[in-house]
Amino acid sequence: MNKNAQNILLIGSVHDCTDLEYASGFRAVDPVVFLDCGARKMLVVTDLEHGRAKRQCPGVEAVTVRDLGLTGKRWRLSDQAAALLKREGIKAVTVAPTFYHGVAERLIQKGIAIRISRKPLYPGRSVKTTEEIRKITEAQQGAVIAMRTAVDTLSRTEIDPAGFLRLRNRVLTSEWLKDLLQGVLVSHGCLCQELILAGGAQSADPHEKGSGPFRAGEPIVIDIFPQNMASGYWGDLTRTVLRGRAEPRLRRMYAAVRQAQAAALARLRAGVKGSSLYKAAAGEMEKRGFRTETKDGRSVGFIHGLGHGVGLAIHESPSLGKTSDDRLRAGNVVTVEPGLYYPELGGIRIEDTVVVTARGWKYLVPCEKRFEL
Amino acid sequence: MNKNAQNILLIGSVHDCTDLEYASGFRAVDPVVFLDCGARKMLVVTDLEHGRAKRQCPGVEAVTVRDLGLTGKRWRLSDQAAALLKREGIKAVTVAPTFYHGVAERLIQKGIAIRISRKPLYPGRSVKTTEEIRKITEAQQGAVIAMRTAVDTLSRTEIDPAGFLRLRNRVLTSEWLKDLLQGVLVSHGCLCQELILAGGAQSADPHEKGSGPFRAGEPIVIDIFPQNMASGYWGDLTRTVLRGRAEPRLRRMYAAVRQAQAAALARLRAGVKGSSLYKAAAGEMEKRGFRTETKDGRSVGFIHGLGHGVGLAIHESPSLGKTSDDRLRAGNVVTVEPGLYYPELGGIRIEDTVVVTARGWKYLVPCEKRFEL
Repeated sequence: MNKNAQNILLIGSVHDCTDLEYASGFRAVDPVVFLDCGARKMLVVTDLEHGRAKRQCPGVEAVTVRDLGLTGKRWRLSDQAAALLKREGIKAVTVAPTFYHGVAERLIQKGIAIRISRKPLYPGRSVKTTEEIRKITEAQQGAVIAMRTAVDTLSRTEIDPAGFLRLRNRVLTSEWLKDLLQGVLVSHGCLCQELILAGGAQSADPHEKGSGPFRAGEPIVIDIFPQNMASGYWGDLTRTVLRGRAEPRLRRMYAAVRQAQAAALARLRAGVKGSSLYKAAAGEMEKRGFRTETKDGRSVGFIHGLGHGVGLAIHESPSLGKTSDDRLRAGNVVTVEPGLYYPELGGIRIEDTVVVTARGWKYLVPCEKRFEL
Repeated sequence: MNKNAQNILLIGSVHDCTDLEYASGFRAVDPVVFLDCGARKMLVVTDLEHGRAKRQCPGVEAVTVRDLGLTGKRWRLSDQAAALLKREGIKAVTVAPTFYHGVAERLIQKGIAIRISRKPLYPGRSVKTTEEIRKITEAQQGAVIAMRTAVDTLSRTEIDPAGFLRLRNRVLTSEWLKDLLQGVLVSHGCLCQELILAGGAQSADPHEKGSGPFRAGEPIVIDIFPQNMASGYWGDLTRTVLRGRAEPRLRRMYAAVRQAQAAALARLRAGVKGSSLYKAAAGEMEKRGFRTETKDGRSVGFIHGLGHGVGLAIHESPSLGKTSDDRLRAGNVVTVEPGLYYPELGGIRIEDTVVVTARGWKYLVPCEKRFEL
């Protein structure tokens, strides 16, 4: 066995270990053990999962618990990993920082050396294959169709004397519109658990999901990040709209965010640092008078990163954050999502998901940008 | 500070640490740090999340990264945890086996003792409050409505000369019916990522999700386990149906599974061991000639546990597995789901989710059981 080879040990399910799904092709509902020795890859499964593992994971050896001599009771994950490592004569493994501490402790007791990698175990994961881009595009298509539904619905509302938006004489709420969008997403094979539809003061908090009736003249942040149910890949899309006419400050704020996105996109290409894109976007907004600062103990302005990779996880490498050293590579799929948040005005965010190329970038699925409806 | 108190340290998101959501009330999209000292509970959040944490988590102190003196860059979770423990003068913490190994290693380097608990950190979590039962019931209601839609739709199909099921002259497929059910679930505020609709030979693999057209005379396993989007709580429900007439062996198999469920339910009450219910169900099927064994290297018969707790996780304590020592308690919400799987016949599973009482149990939401449609 090659002593220089890095033997990667992954344990987890689709919920907590997307690297396992990426490297094995196996969608595990409950945690499983996967050992990646480069040329050889092994997945430990129950008899029950053996058929599915063989079908879903070409190039991966499906090892049953019984093959490892573990029979008669429910074996712990650490027992499965230890038995597999023993069979393979492996004494040292590399794991991610999120590896289960309880399993690590047991393996160390059995004499296995565990190295925690502070870098991504699969650096190639951030560079998407054509097939992966197709899958992300499919999820993004769901997001775009749902976004059009949201924008069309809001633009069709009437503004009542109290300023509420009405559709067929009923006040339109965030909850009602979310239900509508969820139905659209599902009919396109997508799920979006954390749909954001936040109007007015709620829009000033980028993590607020939104509730209650919408009003005219207030920004409504619509952030749709669906996961395609069949492939497990995600899409991500945000628009901010306003029914009626915006006050001049909000209009300038929207223009600043849009200009910030354009500035970042103008610089986006393989080789560029994530943080330099962040700075381009932040600078554009600052220049227009929209400052990022602490006011009454609360951060206001551009208070989150510019973007993140999208794939089997909704947040993955590379980062377009303020301090990100990640250099973009052709084939990265990233969001570009500048935003501004001020409690007295509300929030505005515009987000697209794009694929990075050698000389620039391409939309996965274009989606129009309008503010006032 | 009370030296005997167990200081529980939880780090994670809703995806990988439901204990954190349970103990804090906080739904974290990205991982956060939570320290539970019994009387005092502290959650570390960014400025961005401070407002939401205060709203969502009464009784929990929302500590910002800034409060901990961490400013100016993106701080690691281990830095956040270390700073909080230092502030509180805590030198030893208890964690779950799934705690992040990378964080544990850094804390150990900083002199923190880490004890891995092999027992649930929140043993009370398996006993549901009235409010939790209401939330699970809400998810289960979605499952029941979707199940009725599935059964009604299948019963309305026509059987074509080739044995395929047709609806409005189109062959009914697993994919089509899943889309229909997803829409129903979403309109009831629920998501079900891993819906199972497996017909014929596919039904013999309990983890197979199903695809392609359905045929008459073959069992169709319908397993619906939705999560309510607002509350995060799950429901779980399985029925097996067959369009047309079943061959006698399948009919006997269905009767055996149903009888097995009845036998387990007849014994279900607070104080009973999970494994004794498993044995009651298994014995009932064995007695009727349906054996669990290994055939051609494949396990056949009753090849999974009898049930599991349901709450903020779809699989949680207590277990109704073959070797489970868990004793049921009033307020447990558990599935009771015997099944039989034979490659040559197909699979049959019947599952209900019930709440355990001192003297017996109650359905969360009853749902009729029919086999031949």
